[in-house]
This record gives sequence, C-alpha cells and structure tokens, in this order.
Amino acid sequence: MTTADSAPPIRRGRGRPGHDQAAVLRAAVTLFNRRGYDATSIGDLAKELGVTKSAIYHHFASKEDLLRLALADALDELTEVVSAAAGDSAPGSAYDRLREVVRRSVEVLVAHQPAVTLLLRVRGNTPVEVDAVKRRRWLDDQLAELVRAAVAEGALRDDIPPDLVSRLLFGMVNSLVEWYRPDGAYDAQAVAAALAATAFDGLLRR
Amino acid sequence: MTTADSAPPIRRGRGRPGHDQAAVLRAAVTLFNRRGYDATSIGDLAKELGVTKSAIYHHFASKEDLLRLALADALDELTEVVSAAAGDSAPGSAYDRLREVVRRSVEVLVAHQPAVTLLLRVRGNTPVEVDAVKRRRWLDDQLAELVRAAVAEGALRDDIPPDLVSRLLFGMVNSLVEWYRPDGAYDAQAVAAALAATAFDGLLRR
Repeated sequence: MTTADSAPPIRRGRGRPGHDQAAVLRAAVTLFNRRGYDATSIGDLAKELGVTKSAIYHHFASKEDLLRLALADALDELTEVVSAAAGDSAPGSAYDRLREVVRRSVEVLVAHQPAVTLLLRVRGNTPVEVDAVKRRRWLDDQLAELVRAAVAEGALRDDIPPDLVSRLLFGMVNSLVEWYRPDGAYDAQAVAAALAATAFDGLLRR
Repeated sequence: MTTADSAPPIRRGRGRPGHDQAAVLRAAVTLFNRRGYDATSIGDLAKELGVTKSAIYHHFASKEDLLRLALADALDELTEVVSAAAGDSAPGSAYDRLREVVRRSVEVLVAHQPAVTLLLRVRGNTPVEVDAVKRRRWLDDQLAELVRAAVAEGALRDDIPPDLVSRLLFGMVNSLVEWYRPDGAYDAQAVAAALAATAFDGLLRR
C-alpha cells in the first residue's frame, strides 16, 4: 500500500508499475461504465486500484473531475473530427465530407471506446454532465446539417427525412461501443469500410 | 401516503390512481435506466412513487425481481420475433425473413423502449443479469445465422463478413433506444421503413 502524502503514491499501488494519473482515469471510466457513475465512489476506485483514497485525491479533485476529464477525452476528439468536416469552409462535397466524418468517427470510437461509451450514457444533472450533453447535441446538429447538405447537393436519396438519416447513420456508428471488441477479427479500418458500404451502398447484392 | 399492511396499498400513493404493479415496474425501469441498477434502491423507488417500501414489497420480492420482470418484458417479445423469423421451418426467403425481423424488432423497441434500454445495458453478475445476457446472445446468434443465410442465398452482398453485417444492422436497430422519441415526428412504421431502406438499399441516390 501507499502512504497518502508521498509524491506520486499511485505508482506504487500493489507493487504494479504505471499506476499514474492516466491509469487512474482509465480505471475510473471502466468502473463508471460497469456500475454507473452514481453508484461508483472514490472509495470503490481506490479499492479497485489497491491504493488509498488520498492517493487518488492527490491527482484528481473529485469524482466529477474524473468524469469531466474522461468525457473531454471523447468530446475533444469527436469535436475535432466533426469541425474538420462540417464547417462551411471545409473542402470537398458534403457527401465526401460525410463519408470522411463516418470513417474518422469509427476510428475515434475504436481508439477511445470506454470514454465514448461513458459519453453516450451520460444522463445526469451535474454541471459536467449537462455540459457534455450540450456538446453532444452540438455534434449531432452539425452531423444532421452535413447530411442535409449531402441530400441537397443530390448525392443522397431524398425520400428519407435527413434528420432520420442522420440518426440512423450515426446510430450505427455509435453502436460500435456496444459490440466492438478490440481483440476481435476487425480493426477500425475494416469496420469503417464495412459501415460506409452498408450505409451508403446498401446490403443488397447488385 | 399508504399504510404498509393494507391490501393494495400502492394504488393509493399520493392519491393518484393506477399505482398498481405495472406502474411500479415502469417506475423501476425508469430509475434503473436513469441512475443505473446498482445505484437504485427499493427506498429510492418508494420515494419516487410516494409510497412505503412495504407497499413495493407487497408486489415484488426484491429489487432483482423487478429487474427480472423488466428484462423478461423485452426478452420475451424479442425472442418471439426472432423465433418466428429465424427458425429452419420459417417460410419465405432468408432475406424476406431478415427484413421482417428488422421491421418487427423496430416495433418492439419502440413499444418497449425503456425495458429494451435496460436490457441493452445489462452487464452485471447477478443470476438475473447473467441469464439475460445469455438470452441476448442467443438472439444475436440467431440473427447472425439469418444474415449468413441471406448472403448464402445470394440476396445480400458477400464482400462484408456476415457477422459484421449482423452487428452493423442490429446496431442500427438497437440505437433506437438512444435517440427515438415517442412524441417525435416518426412512428415505428416510418422508422422501420427508413431503417430498412438505409440498410438494404443504401443512402446513395440512384
């Protein structure tokens, strides 16, 4: 065990190396996803890591601070992807940009699966959660706008309402957090290609 | 408030009518989805309904009993849909049966959205949760088998692995629990049609 006031105490928990700030955050996200944010305490997290609560408070001010950092991990990446593709000044057709944002979103979801899982389940009323929901809504709005532009330019079919297309398309993308296995048969590139082929070209043999 | 030992005490909670067994179950599912199953106690549920804990125990043996009934609500419906379409003796082509199972799954998700939401988030180690995960896996296996059959009969493209097609297709279906709004612009029929058109025909204008 560690002492509460030594400098980087978490590194020595249970004698395992690498119990640093990032490792605590990873463990917190895993616990939040497994038990729910509300049901998880700093005490639970300390127990899971085999360290004292003080060792965690050495790095993080509060449980909500851990949540904020975990959500920022997912939100910052997704915001970058969507901003690059959805802005008015972005180059290329709306359809090309939509395909690109689908491809890159899949990459982010695969690379940051636990944090995105947490983000997609956020429902609560704490300021951190309210802010995350607001940022998610901004992303959803940008994506819906990009779908509308791809329909308007004539690339996508216009017999399905664009907001429904956007929900279905990114619903399929977001579903990855539920079923994707990093140790499975498919890497991010394979999933992104299969997903784009399914959504844009359709599953029917031609 | 109610007294703990009167016969159907929940009916009289806060003077509202209809606080019967089904209403308690609905409230439990809502709370489980909002806070997580682990973080929700029978006390929380009693408070939410404005009744005593005894009033709840009058109808349900335990918190796990509530979970079991809620999950059965979703699982029984989905099992019926999948069994009707995926069995060897089911009539019609695999492709027709796959379209039908997609359509009916959307209907079940819309009609039982809170219970299916709970089902899709089940992760825990209680016997009820382990059993639900097992039943979900059976459904997933049946659906993957149906997709394989639709590829084998030549209806669906064969350049995407069938197990990945199944994950993407039912990932899109399951995403409904996250974004569908019963008071929104689209009923189950409209969503089912848009989803099937997207997945099978694709979003590109032809």
